[in-house]
Amino acid sequence: METDTMRGLKRTHSCGSLSRKEVGLRVVVMGWVDSRRDHGGLVFVDLRDRSGVVQVVFSPEDRKSFTKAQTLRSEYVLAVAGTVRRRPAGTENPKLSTGEIEIQAEEARILNRARTPVFYIEDGVEVDENLRLRYRYLDLRRPEMQRTLEFRHRAAKAVRDFLDSRGFWEIETPFLTRSTPEGARDYLVPSRLNPGKFYALPQSPQLFKQLLMVSGCERYFQIVRCFRDEDLRADRQPEFTQIDLEMSFVDSGDVMALVEEMVAALYRETTGVELEIPFPRITYADAMDRFGTDKPDLRYGMELHDVTDVAAGCGFKVFQTVAGGGGRVKGISVPGGAVFSRKELDDLTRFAGQYGARGLAYLLYTEEGIRSPIAKFFTAGELEALVRRLEAVPGDLLLFVADRPAVVAAALSALRRHLAERLGLIDRSRNEFVWVREFPLLEYDEDEKRFVAVHHPFTAPVEEDIALLTVEPARVRARAYDLVLNGVEIGGGSIRIHRRDVQELVFSAIGLEPGEVKEKFGFLLEAFEYGTPPHGGFAVGFDRLVMLAAGKQTIRDVMAFPKTQSGTDLMTGAPDAVAPAQLRELGIIVASKPKGAAGDG
Amino acid sequence: METDTMRGLKRTHSCGSLSRKEVGLRVVVMGWVDSRRDHGGLVFVDLRDRSGVVQVVFSPEDRKSFTKAQTLRSEYVLAVAGTVRRRPAGTENPKLSTGEIEIQAEEARILNRARTPVFYIEDGVEVDENLRLRYRYLDLRRPEMQRTLEFRHRAAKAVRDFLDSRGFWEIETPFLTRSTPEGARDYLVPSRLNPGKFYALPQSPQLFKQLLMVSGCERYFQIVRCFRDEDLRADRQPEFTQIDLEMSFVDSGDVMALVEEMVAALYRETTGVELEIPFPRITYADAMDRFGTDKPDLRYGMELHDVTDVAAGCGFKVFQTVAGGGGRVKGISVPGGAVFSRKELDDLTRFAGQYGARGLAYLLYTEEGIRSPIAKFFTAGELEALVRRLEAVPGDLLLFVADRPAVVAAALSALRRHLAERLGLIDRSRNEFVWVREFPLLEYDEDEKRFVAVHHPFTAPVEEDIALLTVEPARVRARAYDLVLNGVEIGGGSIRIHRRDVQELVFSAIGLEPGEVKEKFGFLLEAFEYGTPPHGGFAVGFDRLVMLAAGKQTIRDVMAFPKTQSGTDLMTGAPDAVAPAQLRELGIIVASKPKGAAGDG
Repeated sequence: METDTMRGLKRTHSCGSLSRKEVGLRVVVMGWVDSRRDHGGLVFVDLRDRSGVVQVVFSPEDRKSFTKAQTLRSEYVLAVAGTVRRRPAGTENPKLSTGEIEIQAEEARILNRARTPVFYIEDGVEVDENLRLRYRYLDLRRPEMQRTLEFRHRAAKAVRDFLDSRGFWEIETPFLTRSTPEGARDYLVPSRLNPGKFYALPQSPQLFKQLLMVSGCERYFQIVRCFRDEDLRADRQPEFTQIDLEMSFVDSGDVMALVEEMVAALYRETTGVELEIPFPRITYADAMDRFGTDKPDLRYGMELHDVTDVAAGCGFKVFQTVAGGGGRVKGISVPGGAVFSRKELDDLTRFAGQYGARGLAYLLYTEEGIRSPIAKFFTAGELEALVRRLEAVPGDLLLFVADRPAVVAAALSALRRHLAERLGLIDRSRNEFVWVREFPLLEYDEDEKRFVAVHHPFTAPVEEDIALLTVEPARVRARAYDLVLNGVEIGGGSIRIHRRDVQELVFSAIGLEPGEVKEKFGFLLEAFEYGTPPHGGFAVGFDRLVMLAAGKQTIRDVMAFPKTQSGTDLMTGAPDAVAPAQLRELGIIVASKPKGAAGDG
Repeated sequence: METDTMRGLKRTHSCGSLSRKEVGLRVVVMGWVDSRRDHGGLVFVDLRDRSGVVQVVFSPEDRKSFTKAQTLRSEYVLAVAGTVRRRPAGTENPKLSTGEIEIQAEEARILNRARTPVFYIEDGVEVDENLRLRYRYLDLRRPEMQRTLEFRHRAAKAVRDFLDSRGFWEIETPFLTRSTPEGARDYLVPSRLNPGKFYALPQSPQLFKQLLMVSGCERYFQIVRCFRDEDLRADRQPEFTQIDLEMSFVDSGDVMALVEEMVAALYRETTGVELEIPFPRITYADAMDRFGTDKPDLRYGMELHDVTDVAAGCGFKVFQTVAGGGGRVKGISVPGGAVFSRKELDDLTRFAGQYGARGLAYLLYTEEGIRSPIAKFFTAGELEALVRRLEAVPGDLLLFVADRPAVVAAALSALRRHLAERLGLIDRSRNEFVWVREFPLLEYDEDEKRFVAVHHPFTAPVEEDIALLTVEPARVRARAYDLVLNGVEIGGGSIRIHRRDVQELVFSAIGLEPGEVKEKFGFLLEAFEYGTPPHGGFAVGFDRLVMLAAGKQTIRDVMAFPKTQSGTDLMTGAPDAVAPAQLRELGIIVASKPKGAAGDG
């Protein structure tokens, strides 16, 4: 079926830009047919482009255009030349920015036809996500998705403008890099020119940005794709985007202040919201103590309170045993929870059990006093102490977990989140940023039977803890800082090691053999000997930050072409089997019979 | 060996920023020791950072700093607190921006020590390129390389600012994509979650940007890494950067005008040069006719002239035979070449032979007349016709090649370039941009025995040539346009096919089987049916454009971490053998025994 061409026709305006100012002007608009209505002997077409919608009117006097207009269907691509005029009185549409005017069509060209879309091209449609991903080009045509793409563009632009204004240079680092241990699983790329050898796609440009500091660049940044071949649980993607930056001659405070201003610039340029900076800062130890997690959500209260001392002396056996055996007893006070039913409380106990808690003790604090099956094990003074410690008021529910510190933290932190959601305690309009600092440098990995880096092995230890590296590695604090927004970690950074001797101590503390160190990190240690300045940096998960700033629920909604949980692109069919000749050239053989592979026989 | 820490010290100024304005101010600077001189009982240190160099003076009154200063060596990392003062009269250094002042040191801290660099950290050093790549962090520390990194940052920023101001959205497309036929060789990435299947790294985001046009984004761009697994001849890199853009509802002229303004913005912001736009435009046919190449260098003359008609009637057998047998006789006039010696002329003949020319005829046009061994075969009128046709003046050398058109073009175009270099005819201050248009859509590939796309199979044919696709494919013109700068192709683009039927005709013309089309491009053809607007775009080789704008000789000098011809990174050692467990997880086996592979046994 033939279509018209654009030849000789130049678009003069975008649909959404037209208003009373253009009345009387001859314009050319191009876009998609949003809808067509035949009414009163006229044809009305809502024409949509990226900027919005405008009404076009076809009247039978112009027989040729009118006839064409009668064939128009949704999503046809249309060019219209016509004159802007005021809509007849009473037919204005105040909901539309172009609602006061319409275009009287003088010429129409059908630039392309369209099949009926597999789902409606409009906001808020409930469509199976797999169908949305399969027809991503239709999904992205919805105004909501268009606005998100623009939002993301604006966010990246704001970051680049800000960092440029602060003397940062965007420097591109390689994607075909070397596989190194001590990270997540790498994506590998076989090298045809070096048979048997592989490149790795970068998990982050960490070593390159440090080498740029060695080279004297002083202020580097990059908005850059990173890759991790992890099992894709929850909201993970095999490739993701990072705002990556590094600075020389700075301490943690300098980097944090810079990042705060950068995030504030992003919010200002995209949402218009002026964030309050500096963000609050707490230590890892405080975060664990008060919230049971290193990613605390500060939009609501219900902080954790330690009552181990009270528990130790009380008559409740479970508390006594735990408190006496080196465990912890902590509690939270749930606003309005005193009305919970027995069933609701049982559900909470089961919920806490998923996080390892063997039980959940509760006190219902009503105007009439405290009700609880365990109340009888406490003296009035002890009950009062518990209430006071948890800062409870009448109407609250007091929940306690007694267990190993890790279990107490996990269970109460999960309960806190769960109850805040359920009781509607979360003010969704708030953006609660918080810095978490002084993480432990290392943690013991029970599977690997060795210490591993909590962040990565290039993180600098706190100066006065360096001596502990060989004697008490678990106590060494890192010069690291994570940025958390509304309970979600959106970035992390640290001051890096810049001395060869310290780097060697850390490699040794995590059990790397000298041979492996030389083989994998020899170039880095060597670089440290040629005048490496003190330096530190940060990386922001850009997808996640944009998701939160734009108020979206998943990072897939802020990526143009995301993949499914199994890492497939439902639109193009990637990954796929490749021609045997391609594998022969690379000198590799597929070991296992691929499932459903085509063209690989 | 212990070093000092920065603790308590905040950098207040960059070295190069200090001038008479700061005299009397107490400052803190941090950087690298560029040199140390002990003179007149004082120690002078030139301290260097990204911004420049400043002189620091240590006097023995401050014993502690003085003693420390005496141990300083080149490339030590130093922090200095001190007071800015005017240099004593007569000791100013007018070559230095900070040459009027110096810093009287009051405190010095050695932040890190440095081994003697493997080469001098200064501009213009002659160092083996492999050594530069192995110690890239030292190479990048040279001021010249620092300026280039900044230049590249400015170039990218200028492009982003310009495109943003024109309503383009930067949208990120996937790196883990699908391998498609009809391009260069893909880099493949095995998928662990989909055993036996592979992702391909993108050679360009071509299909994704077209799908973004289907989605109604209208104006997309991206400064994006692309990958081609080619044998790395000359100035190629396995990964390179592209300014990639696409627009809806445009014709070729719109895209070319936009690109011209973008390139002009880049030059303005980086070099201060105001380019003259629009750039000249010639057709592919004209370029081949006048320059023998589709990448003409317009900085000098010596255009090719056709003399086949004169040759056909002359008495010189070689010319007669070629002209009569469907070949071409063309010539160029070399300014000042009439003084060339017999040996020089023999060398030119050998040079032309490398491009397939079986001979090179010449006429030396002197004030006394024409000298040549073949002059006798021409009448005076014929000689005069040749001189006139080639627009020669006395002193010129007239060179002729008679052969098949392709050989004539290749040999004369190479001679033209070669002689322009040798005779110093190239004005290096000029930036001669030219658009080459109306390429053939398809060309016959003798190896594959089929037509292949000259650009790529998504390029739209000229409307009135569509009917030729099935009958005379070689005559179909493409709506394509390349941008050439000083004889180097820096970008290419086209109006794309936006109709399924036309796309199918082109796939069929290049011999793709319907099954393969469905398998590999089915999603694209399907997308074309859902309201695809007319669209077109462009891609600029960013590395090459920056190289030319910055006046560099190789793209390796404008990339932070380039690879060698064999695709290896001499600094990190990528690519390398990987652990057997990594390959087991991916379900692949290395077929050939890797050379020098470690840890793979």
